[in-house]
Amino acid sequence: MSKKYLMTPGPTPVPEDIRLEMAKPIIHHRTKEYQAIFKEATEGLKKIFKTSNNVYTFTSSGTGAMEASIVNVLSPGDKIIVVRGGKFGERFADLAQAYGIEVIPIDVEWGTAPEPEIIKAALKKNPSVKGVYTTLCETSTATVFDIKAIGEIVKGTGALFVVDAISGLGADDFENDKWGVDIAVCGSQKGLMIPPGLAFCSVSEKAWKYAETSKLPKFYFNFKKYKKAWLDTDTPFTSAITLVIGLKKAVEKINKQGIDNVIAEHNAQARAFRAACNAIGLKIFSKSPSSAVTGVNTPARINADDLVKLLKTEFNVTFAGGQEHLKGKIFRCAHMGGIDREHTIESIRALGQALTKLGYEFKAGAGVAAAEDILH
Amino acid sequence: MSKKYLMTPGPTPVPEDIRLEMAKPIIHHRTKEYQAIFKEATEGLKKIFKTSNNVYTFTSSGTGAMEASIVNVLSPGDKIIVVRGGKFGERFADLAQAYGIEVIPIDVEWGTAPEPEIIKAALKKNPSVKGVYTTLCETSTATVFDIKAIGEIVKGTGALFVVDAISGLGADDFENDKWGVDIAVCGSQKGLMIPPGLAFCSVSEKAWKYAETSKLPKFYFNFKKYKKAWLDTDTPFTSAITLVIGLKKAVEKINKQGIDNVIAEHNAQARAFRAACNAIGLKIFSKSPSSAVTGVNTPARINADDLVKLLKTEFNVTFAGGQEHLKGKIFRCAHMGGIDREHTIESIRALGQALTKLGYEFKAGAGVAAAEDILH
Repeated sequence: MSKKYLMTPGPTPVPEDIRLEMAKPIIHHRTKEYQAIFKEATEGLKKIFKTSNNVYTFTSSGTGAMEASIVNVLSPGDKIIVVRGGKFGERFADLAQAYGIEVIPIDVEWGTAPEPEIIKAALKKNPSVKGVYTTLCETSTATVFDIKAIGEIVKGTGALFVVDAISGLGADDFENDKWGVDIAVCGSQKGLMIPPGLAFCSVSEKAWKYAETSKLPKFYFNFKKYKKAWLDTDTPFTSAITLVIGLKKAVEKINKQGIDNVIAEHNAQARAFRAACNAIGLKIFSKSPSSAVTGVNTPARINADDLVKLLKTEFNVTFAGGQEHLKGKIFRCAHMGGIDREHTIESIRALGQALTKLGYEFKAGAGVAAAEDILH
Repeated sequence: MSKKYLMTPGPTPVPEDIRLEMAKPIIHHRTKEYQAIFKEATEGLKKIFKTSNNVYTFTSSGTGAMEASIVNVLSPGDKIIVVRGGKFGERFADLAQAYGIEVIPIDVEWGTAPEPEIIKAALKKNPSVKGVYTTLCETSTATVFDIKAIGEIVKGTGALFVVDAISGLGADDFENDKWGVDIAVCGSQKGLMIPPGLAFCSVSEKAWKYAETSKLPKFYFNFKKYKKAWLDTDTPFTSAITLVIGLKKAVEKINKQGIDNVIAEHNAQARAFRAACNAIGLKIFSKSPSSAVTGVNTPARINADDLVKLLKTEFNVTFAGGQEHLKGKIFRCAHMGGIDREHTIESIRALGQALTKLGYEFKAGAGVAAAEDILH
């Protein structure tokens, strides 16, 4: 295999037409030409978020937009509920605490989704809570949370509902407005299939009310500056111009296919990959598997990091390993963004060959057969 | 003229070989391949900054790194001196105030550089000051400040010396270590000739001492997280991978030519452009003109924005207009990054033609002749 297959949960492969669009001579950002691109990109994003709220674009990693979702709506001493079911839920808690916010953690076992009832109980017990912060797809555990159900619970309260949709958007079902999400955070290098460097926040009217009284210090990520610049189809600080140009092309592609079709396609690839793993005797790590990324336990005697390394060096397939205490125990394969059926099937083939090389025995071809059963 | 000439002080043109390098299929950032690129890029940057300090890379606009230079070393209630000689000096003050820092402003007339003696006096009057924040090249007024002289003054005090070198680096002389700079801030889309989206901070030992006791809240821009990740040749949050790949190529090109030669070349272009303007009767706005960008007063009856618009639409030359109260009064032409002699000469030709079209009279060809006298 000389072609390379990037199957990591961010960055995902950037389609060639998007790469070439970004490689054109750069243009200045305070021009009508750029404004038209920026407008189309951000309006297109709203369809992907399924929101009528503005979606603001930051030049930063996803974590920057997570920070924005805290510093813009909270004040020192505020309390929030944070669901910690993996590395990124933990990051929300760390971020809030760095800003002097009191965190009421809801810890769920890695690989499982939180019971909505537990959040309901926590909200009842802590009626002064200013927000419920959670994750759509917890990338570190490849687990999707029931945002719709949690949204139903938060909706009737005074708390904001903030969702880190960084790696779920465009692969897992997500309905910003219908599910009552006040701030959804996203990044560019996952389902949106452009390189990392842009991050996004949708901001609801309810969130704007909180923003009016928020006292946490901020400048670079200050929503109000972005709202003001929005009136001139602009950002307050120089955007990552080439990435916005790529974003425009990417959202155009996604919306041409239709976001529901895009999600269905990635869901099919995820199901196919899981079926393939099961068919060769591997166990899926998550009890609530995401369509954005799949985490897989390696067989007892195989270290996941060895498998990932072998796949990369000898098969040109890049999976991700496990993080924190899952290191060496699971590998992760993404299904979002520019990842297509060819990538999925070739990864399954390579996975089988690599496992064989590591001494694992299974019925040859069973993985690809199971996947093709789903993808026909 | 069908070729386009981007002469704005950021973004500057991105050379074709850098654009094509960034257009290759994306790679994952937690790989040896990427680590080697990241290491080469950041080590190369140190030569351009002329520093032995680490230079940390943020995925953000330049303003993000300006924020980093405040939140990492100061605590609520601290006092700093900020030189306000244009839009970007003002931004430092606004940023500091947003974080509850008391600002002692040194206001200098737009288009002039601050007298070092005034800074000396301010430091003497306010011995508890924690930092002196200033600009290398104030882009809004195309004015270079005497950082060397200010550095001499700050060196003997307890205050940190923080320099916004966003648009000066790579065009105006700059010696991070020799001049006693504790934090130098830079952006990617100016002298470093890649697209916007990356920003940098060099951090001295003295600055690290301040960082140890700093109490301002921070997370995304927290130096300590970058220092820790640096040990693994990594960043704490997913970097703008393609921009780092471009950066590696750009610093390679700059260091191959030699930073002093690069600066001398841009200085020659700047002198040539100023000579051309003078030769056709235009007045340079700044009393301390930068080699990164030149601001030029338009003749009395010509609105600078009309001239900029005409040059863009009919001559494919993009200059920048004036900002704030200079809007309509000056235009700005950059000389840094990917801007070369051809760009400079063609811009002068186009400027002459556009001025003629607007009814301004001057000796035909005098501008190009004066510029060629300098560039031979």
